[in-house]
Amino acid sequence: MTTNSDTPPARTYSACLVIIGNEILSGRTQDANLAYLAKNLNDAGVQMTEARVIPDIESTIIATVNEVRAKHDYVFTTGGIGPTHDDITALSIAKAFGVALVLDPEAKRRLESRYSTLPLNEARLRMAHVPEGATLIDNPVSAAPGFRIGNVFVLAGVPAIARAMFDGLKPGLTGGARILSLSITCNLAEGTIAQDLTGIQDRWPALGIGSYPMWRNEGGFAVGLVLRGPVKADLEAAGAEVVAMIATHGGTVLEEAWS
Amino acid sequence: MTTNSDTPPARTYSACLVIIGNEILSGRTQDANLAYLAKNLNDAGVQMTEARVIPDIESTIIATVNEVRAKHDYVFTTGGIGPTHDDITALSIAKAFGVALVLDPEAKRRLESRYSTLPLNEARLRMAHVPEGATLIDNPVSAAPGFRIGNVFVLAGVPAIARAMFDGLKPGLTGGARILSLSITCNLAEGTIAQDLTGIQDRWPALGIGSYPMWRNEGGFAVGLVLRGPVKADLEAAGAEVVAMIATHGGTVLEEAWS
Repeated sequence: MTTNSDTPPARTYSACLVIIGNEILSGRTQDANLAYLAKNLNDAGVQMTEARVIPDIESTIIATVNEVRAKHDYVFTTGGIGPTHDDITALSIAKAFGVALVLDPEAKRRLESRYSTLPLNEARLRMAHVPEGATLIDNPVSAAPGFRIGNVFVLAGVPAIARAMFDGLKPGLTGGARILSLSITCNLAEGTIAQDLTGIQDRWPALGIGSYPMWRNEGGFAVGLVLRGPVKADLEAAGAEVVAMIATHGGTVLEEAWS
Repeated sequence: MTTNSDTPPARTYSACLVIIGNEILSGRTQDANLAYLAKNLNDAGVQMTEARVIPDIESTIIATVNEVRAKHDYVFTTGGIGPTHDDITALSIAKAFGVALVLDPEAKRRLESRYSTLPLNEARLRMAHVPEGATLIDNPVSAAPGFRIGNVFVLAGVPAIARAMFDGLKPGLTGGARILSLSITCNLAEGTIAQDLTGIQDRWPALGIGSYPMWRNEGGFAVGLVLRGPVKADLEAAGAEVVAMIATHGGTVLEEAWS
């Protein structure tokens, strides 16, 4: 395999997102956390390589978390950490790790500050319980914390809270190289460039090259070609091949964007 | 267990959605198929009880599809059936079933009609290949068909195409009861009603009751309480308990909606 670069292969870090919630699986609620976490994990050098959406069923949460925490460097869960009967994530994670669910004094203190005008009743105190040995994840939006145990990070489901929790965690994550992305959009049909694109992929096996067709109402066929990899020089060189290939088919580059 | 109804328990039908695509896991593309399929499967009496997002890796597709097709009545996949090198779904599904990938004459005929002005080159002919024994799924948008093999339905990833393919399939699906949903939104904090809501859930074990907090910029706390089940009379009776419970806490029902 030619790497076309002097950079040694780096250790990669993987993450799995487990979206816990009947409301996602019923179609009532559109998930808004996956894309945000994926992009921001990449900034931290961690690649989301799997995501699962599962119902609010204890045995399913336990089995899923235990399966994916053994396979990935990081697991993030969203959903099910509120005060109501259907919020069973914390207890399920405790059972997955074989530990007790315990009242965390610091979590209780944060809820007491937050609920100065509302009673800190038994239901709200559920949100101060975490698996024994877990550490709290700050919630700057509504106080009730998430928690981390082992490589599992338990976040709220409400997007504004999930994002704020993740933003606080992000600087502390250990990752590898950030994957860069070069997106080249052209006005050709996907089938026109497919064979030549295979050739480019074969010459650059260390890059991931994706092809995403689209239809422009006024402009007809278009396709977005996305090159992904950790080394900018490789993307620049392979991107130049893509641009030249587009020209040989009489196409025009509509947009070129890095991210 | 009290069912509060004379309806015998019906056989339930489950589905798993497998979203195949690096572009979803990188955060570049927001999935727009899960919610549509979930709602429309429910119309056909089938409940989506799991979804997975996996990368364009053959071994992962094979392992995932073989795992979930053994667990669910139906499996739907989206993504990876175009003409480019990264479109590996059809071959992976063939391998999952241990059959060859073969040229389907009818699929080829449809592509020939479609591509009257563009060459039906080797890349485009990839889209006429299906696992041996599969039946075609119509694509009224762009001709290139999906396919069904066993209980696995392979759809395009582009939402307009995935939806059109599913809409054609829907009348032919065998399902059970449609799950009805009664959503009651009130102006109370979730923690205020949590304990009483647990009581209602305990009295109606055959219903799924979910609680989804929200924050109204002008109006402060609100929570959506969602009751789900197949029997309308049960939802009406349990819903009346929810409305009465809201009143005992001094709250107001902001919205009541069936779906």
